[in-house]
Amino acid sequence: MTMPATDLATTVLARCDELAGLTEEPGRLTRRYATPALRAAGDAVGGWMREAGMTVRRDAVGNVIGRREGGPRTLLLGSHLDTVVDAGRYDGALGVLVALAAVERAADLPYAVEVYGFADEEGVRFGTAYLGSGAVVGAPLPLERVDADGVRLADVLRTDPVDARRDPAGLIGYVEVHIEQGPALEEAGAPLGVVTAIAGQTRSTVAFHGRAGHAGTVPMDLRHDALAGAAEWVGTVEAAGAEEAGLLATVGELTVEPGASNVIPGRVNASLDVRHAEDRARRAANERLRARAEEIADARGLRLQWQTVLDTVAVACDPTLSDLLARAAGPDVPRLASGAGHDAVMMSRIAPAAMLFVRCAGGISHHPAESVAHDDVAAAIDATTRFLEEVR
Amino acid sequence: MTMPATDLATTVLARCDELAGLTEEPGRLTRRYATPALRAAGDAVGGWMREAGMTVRRDAVGNVIGRREGGPRTLLLGSHLDTVVDAGRYDGALGVLVALAAVERAADLPYAVEVYGFADEEGVRFGTAYLGSGAVVGAPLPLERVDADGVRLADVLRTDPVDARRDPAGLIGYVEVHIEQGPALEEAGAPLGVVTAIAGQTRSTVAFHGRAGHAGTVPMDLRHDALAGAAEWVGTVEAAGAEEAGLLATVGELTVEPGASNVIPGRVNASLDVRHAEDRARRAANERLRARAEEIADARGLRLQWQTVLDTVAVACDPTLSDLLARAAGPDVPRLASGAGHDAVMMSRIAPAAMLFVRCAGGISHHPAESVAHDDVAAAIDATTRFLEEVR
Repeated sequence: MTMPATDLATTVLARCDELAGLTEEPGRLTRRYATPALRAAGDAVGGWMREAGMTVRRDAVGNVIGRREGGPRTLLLGSHLDTVVDAGRYDGALGVLVALAAVERAADLPYAVEVYGFADEEGVRFGTAYLGSGAVVGAPLPLERVDADGVRLADVLRTDPVDARRDPAGLIGYVEVHIEQGPALEEAGAPLGVVTAIAGQTRSTVAFHGRAGHAGTVPMDLRHDALAGAAEWVGTVEAAGAEEAGLLATVGELTVEPGASNVIPGRVNASLDVRHAEDRARRAANERLRARAEEIADARGLRLQWQTVLDTVAVACDPTLSDLLARAAGPDVPRLASGAGHDAVMMSRIAPAAMLFVRCAGGISHHPAESVAHDDVAAAIDATTRFLEEVR
Repeated sequence: MTMPATDLATTVLARCDELAGLTEEPGRLTRRYATPALRAAGDAVGGWMREAGMTVRRDAVGNVIGRREGGPRTLLLGSHLDTVVDAGRYDGALGVLVALAAVERAADLPYAVEVYGFADEEGVRFGTAYLGSGAVVGAPLPLERVDADGVRLADVLRTDPVDARRDPAGLIGYVEVHIEQGPALEEAGAPLGVVTAIAGQTRSTVAFHGRAGHAGTVPMDLRHDALAGAAEWVGTVEAAGAEEAGLLATVGELTVEPGASNVIPGRVNASLDVRHAEDRARRAANERLRARAEEIADARGLRLQWQTVLDTVAVACDPTLSDLLARAAGPDVPRLASGAGHDAVMMSRIAPAAMLFVRCAGGISHHPAESVAHDDVAAAIDATTRFLEEVR
């Protein structure tokens, strides 16, 4: 450890600011999969990796990977470089840059390291998450899905996604640093936390088909208003989450067609995101909400379409790596489950995985107000460096 | 009357088909204000007006106007050429083309006629209706409103909208033919109906501001989900319409920001359309729904913004012109109120106004399935021609 962590934290935060300027939309941060903005962010990160003495490559799905040799076995670190729409600047990027800073600081390790900047974790563009880490672990990619402009995933891939697969042989593990995105560490007064498990999640697209009509002429009792049905269902989603401890249920997207003030909605497309640390509870809640949607559609003469676009089981972090990470983070570091999904979910398929959470202000994430403290970033760099020096 | 109405009806329907091909979107009919598609439709109608021996001009807001001289006084006829999104082909266009066919057929009238193809009645692009007829009667135009792309209304106008004003001196009246857009004539087994009054309407834009957050980390009880609040309110809008006879209340537009499956909605923008034949009942219902929105927002820690974008009083049609139209339409023609707004609302400010409704299949409108019978169109041409020969 040569350079003090506090100076490296300043660099990391400045780099987060620089990446925040690489966006699809002036004035706010939006960096979806396979956009020029994401490519620019990958170029910037690749440049910093080269400055740190790493060799850099982009794989078939656009992940940026920096590698430094050091021995026959390899430790993977990383997080993602894509963002949600109107995002904060730390979700994803901070983990890539803290990993890079710690690798640069911890010289002469007896193993190779690879730092991944994954190209898609949020799943905003194609409505399906983990495209980047999924390709690395050989998960089947939904190549026929199209984005809002009708572009197929298959057509934006650089080459055959099979080429992005990482050989699991000789991997020590995968470690990811990420902001908590929740209020637990702040409430505990702790800068860092070690993740015990990542909750499973089920994401679905839900379409209510009704009949469009003139808002001034079709009597209320003859309507088949798709939005009125969807709104009733949104109420049941919220109520389900409020009634069951540990259940998170969210309708984050909802679009109305045709979508004019004087036309009765003929169709609504909505998303449903259901999470719970217990797989059984998550699946049961999802099925109840699907049954409620069908009841509501039936009662209103609407037609329901339901498609599951993501279904991940809860993933337990590796106990050995997690204990090492906890020792590196200092005494009494909190252990907590993650309600948010992370690339570690996918990476755990090919290597033992562990995660370090960094406290964020107010638990706010997926929002421009996302914020982390300089001292907390320094603590994360310190902990990661100590971890690198201990792990074998 | 030279050419039989049945042949003219064939021409009118063929022209409706031709106009339906002039659209912003391949495969479906969408023709909003001041788009190339609307301009093309105006060019086509202007060409048919010239073939009918009329002189043609476009005014400052883009209305297409054909005039035929005939005497010191002038009768106005017309309807609109813009459409909703994914529209039917008869709403608006049919009235312009039936008027043109009747004028061409009724030669040697002792007064001048002008046929208007209004440029905006639906209000889809700028969220405010009657831009075309509003400019003709000198209504103030909301010049600072912007469309979905941020383009100001002021910037798409051809010249000062004051130039579109029609001098009311010497006007006999304004007559509009339009599909019913409701099921009443079909239920009565009548091809035509004479309109007694046009219901007033209030249109508002309603914004619920909450707080965006991560769908996997923010506990349900700490959320300020703008969509959950808006959905509860949509339920009250539907219930209000169901509870009060004669009240129509519709949320036709609703957009969610940021709008990603894993992000709690931070903001919802919705439209509200309230109609009733009684002005007092309409205003009371609108105020109740506003109060409900405020209660819901308060209870959820959301902020509400409410803007009234249109408020028109109920308009009674002119009894003299309506009686003449009823005689022209034949014995026992039904009289009915219109729940939909029409350019006649605006035109009644400068001239006595009357309207003739044409039966449409299933009452369906604002939908590609919109349909009229050939015989009913012929009946409308006959009635309008007889009206032209009788009115003075």
